[in-house]
Order: sequence, then C-alpha cells, then structure tokens
Amino acid sequence: MTKPFTFELIAQEGRARAGIFHTPHGEIQTPIFAPVGTQATVKSLTPAHLHEIQANLVLANTYHLYLRPGDELVAEMGGLHEFMNWPGPILTDSGGFQVFSLAGIRDIDDNGVTFKSHIDGSAHRFTPERAIAIQENLGADIIMAFDECAEPYDRAYNDKAMQRTHAWAERCIRAKTRTDQGLFGIVQGGIFPDLRAQSAEFIASLDFPGNAIGGLSVGESKDEMHTILEVVDGILPTNKPRYLMGVGTPDDLVNGIMRGVDIFDCVLPTRLARHKSAFSGRSRINIGNAQFAKDPKALVEDCNCYTCQNFSRAYLRHLISVKEILGSTLLSIHNLHTLINLSKEIRRAIQENRFDQFTKNYFTQPTEN
Amino acid sequence: MTKPFTFELIAQEGRARAGIFHTPHGEIQTPIFAPVGTQATVKSLTPAHLHEIQANLVLANTYHLYLRPGDELVAEMGGLHEFMNWPGPILTDSGGFQVFSLAGIRDIDDNGVTFKSHIDGSAHRFTPERAIAIQENLGADIIMAFDECAEPYDRAYNDKAMQRTHAWAERCIRAKTRTDQGLFGIVQGGIFPDLRAQSAEFIASLDFPGNAIGGLSVGESKDEMHTILEVVDGILPTNKPRYLMGVGTPDDLVNGIMRGVDIFDCVLPTRLARHKSAFSGRSRINIGNAQFAKDPKALVEDCNCYTCQNFSRAYLRHLISVKEILGSTLLSIHNLHTLINLSKEIRRAIQENRFDQFTKNYFTQPTEN
Repeated sequence: MTKPFTFELIAQEGRARAGIFHTPHGEIQTPIFAPVGTQATVKSLTPAHLHEIQANLVLANTYHLYLRPGDELVAEMGGLHEFMNWPGPILTDSGGFQVFSLAGIRDIDDNGVTFKSHIDGSAHRFTPERAIAIQENLGADIIMAFDECAEPYDRAYNDKAMQRTHAWAERCIRAKTRTDQGLFGIVQGGIFPDLRAQSAEFIASLDFPGNAIGGLSVGESKDEMHTILEVVDGILPTNKPRYLMGVGTPDDLVNGIMRGVDIFDCVLPTRLARHKSAFSGRSRINIGNAQFAKDPKALVEDCNCYTCQNFSRAYLRHLISVKEILGSTLLSIHNLHTLINLSKEIRRAIQENRFDQFTKNYFTQPTEN
Repeated sequence: MTKPFTFELIAQEGRARAGIFHTPHGEIQTPIFAPVGTQATVKSLTPAHLHEIQANLVLANTYHLYLRPGDELVAEMGGLHEFMNWPGPILTDSGGFQVFSLAGIRDIDDNGVTFKSHIDGSAHRFTPERAIAIQENLGADIIMAFDECAEPYDRAYNDKAMQRTHAWAERCIRAKTRTDQGLFGIVQGGIFPDLRAQSAEFIASLDFPGNAIGGLSVGESKDEMHTILEVVDGILPTNKPRYLMGVGTPDDLVNGIMRGVDIFDCVLPTRLARHKSAFSGRSRINIGNAQFAKDPKALVEDCNCYTCQNFSRAYLRHLISVKEILGSTLLSIHNLHTLINLSKEIRRAIQENRFDQFTKNYFTQPTEN
C-alpha cells in the first residue's frame, strides 16, 4: 500500500492532471468533486445514496460540528467516519471561512478570531491551534490550515489577511499531533495576482501534502478567478494535489481542471436541489415551472442517475409543488451525480489524452434552455 | 398465474390467518402492513428504500392526489405505479375519510359531499361515482368504496352514516368500469356492535373481493376496537381479505391479526419519525432526548434495519437536533421496517402454528422504557 498523503500523477494533458491521492480511508482519484456534508450529513441523502452516485471524498464543516454536536462528542463516538458512517475519505475545513462570514459578530486579531455562535449568540474563540485541535477530534483524513478569507477587492486587507494566513499556516503545522491526517495549506491574496503569487510561493515552501486555493467564488468575476488559478498553478508544486475550495458549477470544474486543479467542493448542488433547480449540461432546469407539469421525460434525458432513470419531470414537479422531502432528495442525487460523473469523464479524457477535445465539445453546449 | 383479486388462505391459527391476495402488480402476502404515501410518496423515502425494507402494498390518498397534481394528470402519466415508480401493489382510499375530516368546510347529503380544498378553499364535490372515477384515473390495484366515517359514539349519526355507506357501496359497484382494479367495501357502525354486525352482513352480501373495517382508531378505546373487530370477524367471509383502515401500532397489528385482520395501514410510523420517535418493541424512544447525546448503541439493538445497522443513537439525535432531513428518513426506515418485519414474523408464526406462543411472548414485553 502506498504511503498515505502521497500523490501519484498518472496522466497529464496541458495543465490538466489525473492522479491518485492516498489517504488512510482509501484512494482519492482526481480530478474529483466532493459533496459537502456541513453537519456530518450531505443534506437529504443517506450514505447509501452517496455510494450509489460513487461519491468518494466527502466534506464536513468544523465550525458547525464544533458548535453541534461538539468535536469532543464526535471524538468520543469514534470520529467522523464512524459517526456519520462514511468509510471513504473525509475532509474538514478549518472553520475559518464560516467564522469570517459572521460579519458584525466576530473580532479578528493576529492571534485568532473571537465570534458569537449563530445559534445562541454564545462567545467562542478560534486560533490556529484550536482549529487543529478541533479537526483532530473530528478525525478527517484531510484537515485544513486556519486561514483568513478577505473581501476579494480590498488590497490592503488582502495583504494583511494573507500575512496572517501565512503565520497561521506555520502555527497549524506546529500544532498538529496526529500522523494519520494530512494538513493542507491555503493560498490567499484576493484577486491580486502578485499577492497570490507571493502566497503560493510561501505556502509551497511549507511542504504541505496538498495545497488549497481559498477566497475564490466570493464575488469576483470568472475571468478574475481564472487569472488567479493560472498564477497559482504556475507556482504550486505539481507533485501535490490542488484543492479549489467552495467552487463547483459544471463550468467551474472544467475551467478549474484546465488550470491544474484536482479537488473541488461546493454546497451548490444540494442547495440548488432545495431550490428546485437541476443541472442540465451547462444550464439549469427549474423543475417547479408549470411547463413541466405533464412532462413525462426524465429530468435530463441522457443522465443515468437514479432520479433520471426512474422518475418523470411531472413527478418531480409534483413533489416540489407539494413540498415533499423526496423532491430535494431526488434533485440532490441528480445534481451531485452530475458533478461527480463530470469529474470522472474528465479523468478518463485526460488519461486518454482527449481532454482538449472534451473541453471544446463541452463549451459548445448552450448555457440557457 | 392465479386470477387477480382472489385470496388464498394458506394457514390459520385461531382467528389469525396467513394468506396470499393476488393483484395485477403481484402477490400480497398477508398479514401485511402497508406504508402510506399520501401524496404519491412515502414521506422522506425513495422507492429504493421501500424495496429495502421489503414493503409490498403501498397506499396513496385520493383526496390529496385529486387536488394535486390531479387524477387526470396521474392518468396521463400512466397511472400511479408509473408516476411514483412503485411496481408493487398500490391501494387508494376513497377520499371519504379526508373529506369527512374537513369539519366546518364540508356539507354531506345522501348523494355525496361538497367540500372546500384545505389548500385554496376552492369548492369540490365527491359522490360515490366521482370517487370511483378518480380512483380509476389513479389506477391502483385495490380501490375503496366511498363511505361515511362518523364520530364513533353518536349512535343516531352512526346509523345514518352506515345506511349511506351501504347505499354508496352499491353505487360504487355500479360505477366501476375497470376490471384490473379490485374494489373493497367498507364496514361502518361506530362502536356499536349491533350496527357493526348489520354493516358487516350487508357489505359481505355485496361480494367484494375484499372487505375493510373503517371508522376505527378515531377516538374509541382499544377494548372497544377489539370488540368491534371480533363482531365483524365472525361475519365477514373468511375467503376474502380483511383490511383494518388507518390502524398501525405494533400492538394494533398483533391484536388485529388475533382477530382475523389481514391488512393494515397507518401514517403513524412516518409521522412519529418526523416527531423524533422510534418504535422499540412495544414502547417508543424519543431520540431527541439529551440522554442519547453520547449513546453509541443502535436505536434498537436487535433490529436489522439500515438505520440500526449503520448509525448510533448519538448520530440520530444530532441529526434531529440540527433539523437535518436525514434524521426523519432514518427514523422512518426504522419505524416502517419494524411494522413490516413484525407482520412477516407473525406470518411465519401462523404458518408454523406458533402464533399463540408468539403473542404470549409479545405481550410480556414492557410498554414503557
């Protein structure tokens, strides 16, 4: 068995990579899309559903699990894998992104962040050491350094947040005690290519087993995101996986993989599902629309997910109209399947040296119905 | 293949029966508990979940489906089996029970009931003929006569409602046009043994392929229910299945089967699930209780359902506490499995002539934790 937290690059085409990242809970075949299980459950799905859509890496959220049920309780219950019954690889974020999103109820200093719980207003404090300790309790395979995610367009703030992120990255490495978890560093720097380059160089120098790109998909344009990915791609080591945090439309996957990204996660597929929306190629279908009331067709005709193989648009629209939970479940299955299947198709295309052709075909699809 | 709507009695012990009822969508092995899919979905479960818990007969609700999405739409989509993707037997109620529950917004006469939709207040009318026409559009294997369900203790009203139910039963038979659906008659008469006897005799005389007992579990005591079941059991033909409508605790199953009942349905298992409550033997566990926060045990230790085989009480409590849908799904799986499995165990006991012993053991279980 290959040593955990090593990355094998098995094929490359242009900047796009197909690889295998080894973890204590199995191989992660990249590129990959990871479903998000914020509160130790991918919303409305059982682990059996996740197996069926061939999910592999699953995310869970440090901020949420720290508050409820508490990281110590999860540790007592044997850690996240046992608690949520997910035998495959798990990744926890550092809690940083959620904490910094708590505008008005958090206070940042060089040592950490004091914040109030969004649930009951109680006061809490995260430091790099605390974020690592919590993640060690949760017990994921991949854990994340505690970082500061700034507004993307404020240069002075991004410079400061980046410096903090770097100092905290070093503290996270020192704080880490478990050897069965891989700690990833995070590149910050907003939309500023020179800051991103500086950050990528510093983070690369710390020799994490994997590197993440944070602070994107937070308000910047797609062009700005792509520019930053290209800057970072040229600097981060090629023998480590790159994880683009919180990004996950079908277009984002293709564009990210073209620019050297290996791992993606996003709440979008399950959130869209709860808002009646389904991925269909590069566009979306709002299944709540009256036009689907008597439509006997599958949600997406060439899709082989459980939802599309078994139910009509008319039935899905009925479920959504009468607010039945099964509607969210079936749309979540379809949306997650779409991204997971897309990442698998791209992986095969890279291995067969036809990713360039794949992207050309992909981008000829319309983005509107 | 045996002709649809015939009932084979394959074993009997005391009044308890094991049988097979043949339908166009397969055999129903009785005694059986049927999950309720009010709006053409058993709440929070996929059909794959229903297969996994070995569900067979599934109910759907005429009143709800008539209002949304409309029975004509369901017919256009190929009928309920195709619409909800349930290949096994389906039963629809007549809509009567729901309509009569709409106190203050319905008006009954000898010809039918005028009522207002609970959704938008629009006016509608059900007659025996209309109830059959709607159920023919929905396309279930077993359809129900349109009946009037009265308050159980009002003798004059029960007498009148019973007479109407009888007249409507004859009209339903005349209105029926499809030969691939079996129409069941319904015995009414409140808690009054003489009215129930009169009703059972009349309904039996109409030679339905199956007979139902309505108007129970609506406020009467368990003793009163059992007395009525015994009266009706002595009169209804033994070569037709008997269906006790809307009844379904574990105790009710055992008590009903002891008194000659073959088919049960109830929303209780899924409703309890949405209220954090799980069947455990003859008692219930409220998994929301703080005592389960760090409990690594299965919900019910000797249960072999997906939920009990894969998750701890601590995890289930967490899901319920943070209001994750998966909590309802997992408790629904457990509660439905419990009743379906109990009916299967009883069937085996009857076939092996040890049902009497089974019931003795069953009733030694405590009803409180």
